This record gives sequence, C-alpha cells and structure tokens, in this order.
Amino acid sequence: MSTSTTVSANTGLEDVVAGTSSICYIDGDKGILAYRGIDIHELADNSTFEEVCYLLWSGKLPTRSELFEFKLQLVRERKLDAQIISLLRQAPKHAQPMAVLRTMVSALSFFDPEERANDAAANQRKAMRLTSQIAMIVAAYDRIRKGKPLIEPDRSLTLAGNFLLMMNGELPSETATRALDIALILQADHELNASTFAARVTAGTLSDIHSAVTSAIGALKGPLHGGANEAVFKILVEIDRDGADPVEYIKGMLAQKKKVPGFGHRVYTTEDPRATHLRAMSRDLGYSSGNVKWFEYSQKIEEFIKEDKKLNANVDFYAASTYHTLGIDVDLFTLIFAMSRISGWTAHIMEQLNNNRLIRPRADYIGPKYPQHYIPMENRE
Amino acid sequence: MSTSTTVSANTGLEDVVAGTSSICYIDGDKGILAYRGIDIHELADNSTFEEVCYLLWSGKLPTRSELFEFKLQLVRERKLDAQIISLLRQAPKHAQPMAVLRTMVSALSFFDPEERANDAAANQRKAMRLTSQIAMIVAAYDRIRKGKPLIEPDRSLTLAGNFLLMMNGELPSETATRALDIALILQADHELNASTFAARVTAGTLSDIHSAVTSAIGALKGPLHGGANEAVFKILVEIDRDGADPVEYIKGMLAQKKKVPGFGHRVYTTEDPRATHLRAMSRDLGYSSGNVKWFEYSQKIEEFIKEDKKLNANVDFYAASTYHTLGIDVDLFTLIFAMSRISGWTAHIMEQLNNNRLIRPRADYIGPKYPQHYIPMENRE
Repeated sequence: MSTSTTVSANTGLEDVVAGTSSICYIDGDKGILAYRGIDIHELADNSTFEEVCYLLWSGKLPTRSELFEFKLQLVRERKLDAQIISLLRQAPKHAQPMAVLRTMVSALSFFDPEERANDAAANQRKAMRLTSQIAMIVAAYDRIRKGKPLIEPDRSLTLAGNFLLMMNGELPSETATRALDIALILQADHELNASTFAARVTAGTLSDIHSAVTSAIGALKGPLHGGANEAVFKILVEIDRDGADPVEYIKGMLAQKKKVPGFGHRVYTTEDPRATHLRAMSRDLGYSSGNVKWFEYSQKIEEFIKEDKKLNANVDFYAASTYHTLGIDVDLFTLIFAMSRISGWTAHIMEQLNNNRLIRPRADYIGPKYPQHYIPMENRE
Repeated sequence: MSTSTTVSANTGLEDVVAGTSSICYIDGDKGILAYRGIDIHELADNSTFEEVCYLLWSGKLPTRSELFEFKLQLVRERKLDAQIISLLRQAPKHAQPMAVLRTMVSALSFFDPEERANDAAANQRKAMRLTSQIAMIVAAYDRIRKGKPLIEPDRSLTLAGNFLLMMNGELPSETATRALDIALILQADHELNASTFAARVTAGTLSDIHSAVTSAIGALKGPLHGGANEAVFKILVEIDRDGADPVEYIKGMLAQKKKVPGFGHRVYTTEDPRATHLRAMSRDLGYSSGNVKWFEYSQKIEEFIKEDKKLNANVDFYAASTYHTLGIDVDLFTLIFAMSRISGWTAHIMEQLNNNRLIRPRADYIGPKYPQHYIPMENRE
C-alpha cells in the first residue's frame, strides 16, 4: 500500500462504516431495527408491504391518496413480457431457483421500457416495476416447473395476496395473506447487508438498476446470507424424516463441527427483532393449519442453541417453518426473501445514485514482494 | 451506530483496506502495477494472456509442461451449450451488449457440469470454463447481431487469436493477435476495483462463482468503470464526424461541466502504467493499419488534459483507439475488458473463498431520529 491515509480494517469490513444512509436504523445491542426511524414492530403490527415500499423509497408514510395512487402504479406493473415467460420455460429443470431468478432479472432489462435511462424518476419507476415483476416471476416459475398452467394476476389483491394466488391457483386466506405480508415487511431492508452492499457497489459505477439488483440476487443466494432459510428447513425435514429428537440431531451436527444455520448475526448481540415476529407467526400458522410440528422442532432447537451456544435465532430461522406452512417449496424460500428485499435494494440503489461516489477500497498486499521478475521459460523450475 | 468499535470511513471506501490479497500489487504514487509481484511492463513485453491466467490463479509462472497442459484445458473448454447460442439469438436487437453478457454468464450456470459445486477444485475448472466461454460469447453475439454465420473455434489458436477469428470470420494477423493479447494482459487484474469488489462481496456469502462474476459484469458496465472506454471512443467519433479540432471539442465539454472520460484514477497519482502500453499500441496499430487519426485525436486530447487539468490518461483512454483499430465495434469495448478481467475476477473469488469472511460493513445512519412512530392513516398530513 502506498497511500499514507490508508485505514486499517477488519476482514469482512466488520463494524467499518462504508457510507451514510437514511434508510435503516439498527441498534444491534438493543435489538432495534427501524425503517426511516419507525420501529419494525410498529410496522409489522400496523403497516402493509406496499406502504413499507413507499416508506423506504420516499422516506415518509404516504397519505391516503398517495398510497392509493402508489398501489395503482404497482398493480399496473403486474405484467411480464411474453419473452420472459418463454425464457422461464427454457430454464432447465435442474437449475437452481436463485440462478433462474438472477438470470430473469438480468433479462428483464431487455424489456424495460426505460432500458437506457438511469435518472431518479426512471429508477423510481423501475423499482416499482421490479417489485411487481419479481413476485410474478417467482409464482410463474413455480407453476411452470410443476407443469401447471399460469394464473393471471388479480389487480384487486395486494402483492402478497396476488403472489399466493398466482403460485397456488386459488384465492389465499386472509390469514395466509397477512402472514406473508408481515414476512415481506420484516425482510424489506436491513442496512448494508451483503446483498444490498453488492447492489450499492454495482450502482456506484453508475451502472443500471437491473445490474445492481442482479448483483444483489447473486449475493443473497449464498448460504451465509439469504440461502440460510433453505438450509434451516432442510434440517427440519431430516429430523422429521428420521423421527429424530431435534436436540439430539443438532448435537450431532455440532459434534461434526457443522454450523447450525439460522443462528447468530453479524450485527445483533441480542435477539433479532424480526425473529420475534417470525416465531409468533410460525406458531400461529402452525396451530391454525393444524400442523404444529415444524414450529415445535424449531422451538426445541432454538432453546438448545440459546442455552448451549448463547446464540439467538435470526430472521432466517423461523422464516423457514413460516414459509413452509404457507405452502411454499423449500427451494423458493430465498426467492421470497428477494421478493421482499427488492424494496430495500432499490431504496439503497436510489440513495447511492442520489449522492454517488465509486465504491473502490484497497487491499493490503501480502503476496510475493515487488519486484519479482519475469523468468524466461527455459529458466523456470 | 451502536457498536463502539466502529471505524469511520471515507465515502466510497477510498483508501480503506477491505482485506488482504496476494494477487495484485499497486503503488499508485510510483505508477507500479504488478501481478503476483511481477511488473506489468515485464508481463506485457514477455508473457501471454494464458500464462497470466495461470499466474493469477496459481500464484506462479508455469513450467513448460504446466503451461502446455493448462492451455490444453482452456482450449477444451471452447464450447458453448446450444441453449446459450439460442438465448443469444433471443436477445433483442436493442439490448445493451453488457446486459446481454451479464444475462448469458448468469445463464451459463444452468449448463455448467459442476453447477452446484463450490469447492476449490471445481471453482478452478469453472474459472477456466468462464474464461474460454466469455470470449466465445462475445464473438458469437457480434456475429448473430450482424446476421452472420457463427464460426467454429480453432483450438490451435490462442484465446486472443481465436476470438478475432470467431468474431471476424478470418484468421487474424500476428500483429493484431499480439496487440489484443497484450491488451488482455494489461486489463487482467487491478486489485479491488469496483467490479472485483462486487465479485468478492457476492462470493463472501458463499454464493457461487457464476453469481460473483455476474455481479462483476454488472459493475463493470458502469461508465465510472469499464464503460469509460466506450465513452472515450464516442467522443473521438464525434470529433471525426464534425471535423472538429480535438482540443476545442474537449474545451467545449469542459465549458459544459462535462467530465472527460478516460482520465484520472482513484488509485494512481501518476501515469497509469497500462496507459503507457496502450498509447504505444494505439500508435503502432494506427501506423500499421494506415489510419493514424484516432491515435492523433487521442494524443491531442491527452496533452491538453494533462496540461489543463493535471490529469493522466488511464487504461480506458487508449484502449478505445486500440480496440477500434482491431476492428472491434465500440459497443463491445467493455465486453473485451470483461474477456480479460474474468481472469482477475475469478482469481479474487477463489482467494476470497480460500479464507472467507462475509463482507458486511455498516452505514452511518443519518435518517429520521429513532424512534419515529407509525402514524395511523387518518392522522397523516
């Protein structure tokens, strides 16, 4: 490193401030998460995903007429180009669903009516379009891979309700719709998590919003990020299949030095406030559906890990049983996360572009000391 | 921010160390760039792009037999699934070429024989595959959009030579092949530039190599990064079309507060060592092709900006006239950059995974003070 102003940083940029943001407030020691200053618990109890999108993008809660107009615009974007459906049909059966979503969102840019525009107004419209489109892509993809006919969107439903209709082919219950809506609220934003940060790094080159969201989806796919909810449910399924005791199963994992997914968080030293809601939702959905076993396995694991490892359940842990009880396939869990987080990603991309600076850190070079020399082939060993 | 260990950072992570790396050494004050300790000038004068790939990935220069085996493996990967060609044919005419490349690389994951593997050995093979495939995709895309028949790869040629053959439909001259080869060497890696950093952030979630490279392509697309070489050539074309004086044209841009692309660099305070080579190459190719005007316009602009703004030409500035003289369309310039940088991206992804830590910084929250409260709709203004 030659620059004298270099700041030494922890690997993984842990606790390093990468910039300012007005979107998401987190106090990891107190277990506080707030969007634009409003506590996540108040939003989960009172708001809707659509209203949260408005809040994240514009910085304030909408008036009645603003929300009416906003929902109308979101609903108008419930359409997918026929070529996107055709591309979905061409995805091989064995493809990883997050790889399919990543590819489809990248391809969506081809059909965006404002393909080459990167100004604030166009990006606001693209954010709305992507939010409506991603939910439709996830539902259509699931229908296509199951050989079922596609369902037309119902513009009278919320995003959550319409998604469940388009995926399941029947009108969802109010309970299911509200449960998914709350899950979407809870996962909408989380400051500079890895996928949002990947989106901001991409947007910082003044690349387009589709590029930035594609980067975010690629990052969310990883098991240290959004992929964790899928990993959690696979464990629950194995416990169920083997008739195993949940705590013994987890002890076995720990004995094999395996990391138990869904626990601990880089930012929270106390309970992840999203987990509080998802735990209650998993329980309530379990009882109302008459199948409480997934919640019960989860609870036993949580109690053991909290006692044994002093680790708290994070957002992914109870998302697993919640999503399953909503009738969502395990390999779509991370896509549901993306359906929600698109709101936060695009809020951060727009904030980045509003006061842009290329995000370009330095590395501490620890390789062969300069200068090594080019050795002619005949002299190499 | 609640964490007491928080380190304050410049916006854009300027001069912030985001981790350690053994791949690329840069001394921005002395104008030094080295891969694995070997100066870029020695590599440009003596090495080949294939050898540089080996160097970046394995950390050392290959012996004769290692290089022979390595080139054989790279050449064996010169194949594209028929479905990728079919997807390329479906890209709309108006699509942005970097958006097409981003989508195709994302889709390549569907057809990778090791789709779900993320271990070091599989990633080494995927890096080789992607390096061979990206060059073929760029050439095939250009043929398809021009309505020309595809050209079969020639396994006896280097990556640079085969690319020119597959794009132009005729065997390239030795001069052209070597010029492209040197350009690929010069752009192969550049430490934690924005696209490489996006790749590492994505890989840090333990997502897959296709996700990480897709993120990198999205970041490279931006005009503050790889997109600059295209912007430079568009200026040269306008100067030529209008018969304008290059310096007067640039003065006009500056009077309109426009940024002149291809000048200045976050890391270099002196001349970008890659620009030194590309300037010579642009000149030599200009003279040998009998068309020196692009070089001459470039040189006049460079002299003026250096004098007037004290800014040095960067890698993008002379890449523009060099690529044009090689017969490459201006809207493919950034794709050529990707064809080269895939080597550095994958080297960094493998290095990240070899000692992984989730890259997850914090933001300095400057939004509405917590706690704001959820205001019922009827009370909103």
